[in-house]
Amino acid sequence: MTAISYEHIKTCKQSGARLGIVHTPHGSFETPIFMPVGTLATVKTMSPEDLKSMNAQIILSNTYHLWLRPGEDIIEEAGGLHKFMNWDRPILTDSGGFQVFSLSDLRNITEEGVHFRNHLSGEKLFLTPEKSMQVQNALGPDIMMAFDECPPYPAEHKYMKASVERTSRWAERCLEAHSRKNDQGLFGIIQGGEYEDLRRQSAKDLVSLDFPGYAIGGLSVGEPKDVMNKVLDYTTPLLPHDKPRYLMGVGSADSLIDGAIRGVDMFDCVLPTRIARNGTIMTSSGRLVVRNAKYARDFKPLDENCDCNVCKNYSRAYIRHLIKCNETLGLRLCSYHNLYFLLTLMENVRQAIREDRLLDFREEFFEAYGFNKPNAKNF
Amino acid sequence: MTAISYEHIKTCKQSGARLGIVHTPHGSFETPIFMPVGTLATVKTMSPEDLKSMNAQIILSNTYHLWLRPGEDIIEEAGGLHKFMNWDRPILTDSGGFQVFSLSDLRNITEEGVHFRNHLSGEKLFLTPEKSMQVQNALGPDIMMAFDECPPYPAEHKYMKASVERTSRWAERCLEAHSRKNDQGLFGIIQGGEYEDLRRQSAKDLVSLDFPGYAIGGLSVGEPKDVMNKVLDYTTPLLPHDKPRYLMGVGSADSLIDGAIRGVDMFDCVLPTRIARNGTIMTSSGRLVVRNAKYARDFKPLDENCDCNVCKNYSRAYIRHLIKCNETLGLRLCSYHNLYFLLTLMENVRQAIREDRLLDFREEFFEAYGFNKPNAKNF
Repeated sequence: MTAISYEHIKTCKQSGARLGIVHTPHGSFETPIFMPVGTLATVKTMSPEDLKSMNAQIILSNTYHLWLRPGEDIIEEAGGLHKFMNWDRPILTDSGGFQVFSLSDLRNITEEGVHFRNHLSGEKLFLTPEKSMQVQNALGPDIMMAFDECPPYPAEHKYMKASVERTSRWAERCLEAHSRKNDQGLFGIIQGGEYEDLRRQSAKDLVSLDFPGYAIGGLSVGEPKDVMNKVLDYTTPLLPHDKPRYLMGVGSADSLIDGAIRGVDMFDCVLPTRIARNGTIMTSSGRLVVRNAKYARDFKPLDENCDCNVCKNYSRAYIRHLIKCNETLGLRLCSYHNLYFLLTLMENVRQAIREDRLLDFREEFFEAYGFNKPNAKNF
Repeated sequence: MTAISYEHIKTCKQSGARLGIVHTPHGSFETPIFMPVGTLATVKTMSPEDLKSMNAQIILSNTYHLWLRPGEDIIEEAGGLHKFMNWDRPILTDSGGFQVFSLSDLRNITEEGVHFRNHLSGEKLFLTPEKSMQVQNALGPDIMMAFDECPPYPAEHKYMKASVERTSRWAERCLEAHSRKNDQGLFGIIQGGEYEDLRRQSAKDLVSLDFPGYAIGGLSVGEPKDVMNKVLDYTTPLLPHDKPRYLMGVGSADSLIDGAIRGVDMFDCVLPTRIARNGTIMTSSGRLVVRNAKYARDFKPLDENCDCNVCKNYSRAYIRHLIKCNETLGLRLCSYHNLYFLLTLMENVRQAIREDRLLDFREEFFEAYGFNKPNAKNF
């Protein structure tokens, strides 16, 4: 019995994009999909009711953060993460690997695991594949991630090769340590940076371990977009057709579409909520910084083409006022809209796959959004 | 034609409490009622949908704050405060008087008005009865408040007498300047501190001006609770029976009940939302500081006798975790519960009036809440 299964509906005739459904112990979700990030068992400024009203089908939470606060033992005692945070739909947790490498100081990588300092208290900690599994088994998400090393970009081939091989050995240890295979699915993570031979080696190693799903890690870490697309071009074909594929940490509209075109099924990123809290809005005609003075008397909605609750009921002028006054409702309205924007984008992507016209959709969207402009930037 | 009218349903046979309905251009509300405070055109951390789901029937907003940010001209251009903040039920605005006296520096009171400095920018400003009316007419609430002086507690009789007389003259000027009598009702404010003769004089002056409603100001400014109750005992009988009576700035559970018993119909206070943002919860058995360590593994709801959405779905442990991590959802859940608690308390007060048992209800509530304990404090 496997906790996670992938049902393939169809492949777009214009691209490699797949329409599918992932089945989990807490229900199913349609792919390609964007997963809002709830780092500390809450998608910042949102309630579960908000997330359901925008049709969020699965959310992500962070093992590293929950391990430190409140501690996985408290969440286990609460009956697991779903019950703790009042979310009864699917949850995916990462492994903690990325945060250990991006947030902590003084890390020291050994074959056994990673020694590092808690970014809050400075306390010395040790994270291993076995510890990551123990924490994720206690949290109880539907989908868990294997503990991997996330090398920086760029990294030398020699370093990356040693890292990929260690990540493969860690993946085996994760599978071994994972104690709830019946109700939690563990995904492997393909690493290898921008090196095709290493992506190939990583995919071969991990596919042989027969995970119920695969992530592509180590992208969106500073490399140019065309490097990301090139890596996806040769990596997704290495992955089993009958399992979901998850591109980690990607949430800009262009990359979501370009990833789907290359056969990616799942995406996550803090981008929509992080920029929202800075008053930056994703709209159908590009980004809009609603805190700017020019919106003080602008009574139009954030996005004139959006039908979300925020755009139906609130003006740019009101939201700017809230943000200028540090009122949390402002951050909430911006976060809601941005998440709705990406979830709706993915609904449109799924519809375009159904209609075998995802490349046409890409052209239309990029044109409207301004991605095609010569000075396009900051997306 | 008058914008505001009061419909008296019945008086409690056990006390002077009145059950009634206030009719406004944006609908009616039942009294006695508690009005959540939305200082800057938002009840902090709440959305209008949240407020409706807890059956908030009228909210308050602050003239002084909105005059400074975003400016009443922007709100008028938006179509008024209701439209600006997406709230289609009744709104009451204060006059700015209280904030001028409590927030600003270097104020100088003249017969004409008050010179003071903007508490944000330090800019010199001048607020007069006419200016307060102009701002409130631009904001467009259903109920406006006359511009008064709020003397500190305690104040000498001589000072208070001069202040009361000036407030009466200002009240006349407010009535004169009020330009939207057909769709906005202006309430007069009775001042006089703890001096019965001055309360009597103030009430006589203002009742002769025939406002559609009356507030009792200058209480809850540091005086003991028995002083407040004594002032109410002799002041509410001075007010017309056929008009609503509003006790300004009062929001602790005991004072709401004691005010209703003395014939008060309307109350407002930032207390429930302010203490919520500090992790302090109003419950049926007294206050609970949910951020305390002892709640880290407490999976009970905030209040075991509460049926609000927060208490139905979230635990003390989860809410404590959110607050400890500075997640705004924590402030939001606490604010929701506290407002629901006071709105439900007032629903229970209305039911007790219907049943002619408000004094019995007071005894039961005070006993459960702990107000009757010898060491009762901090309520």
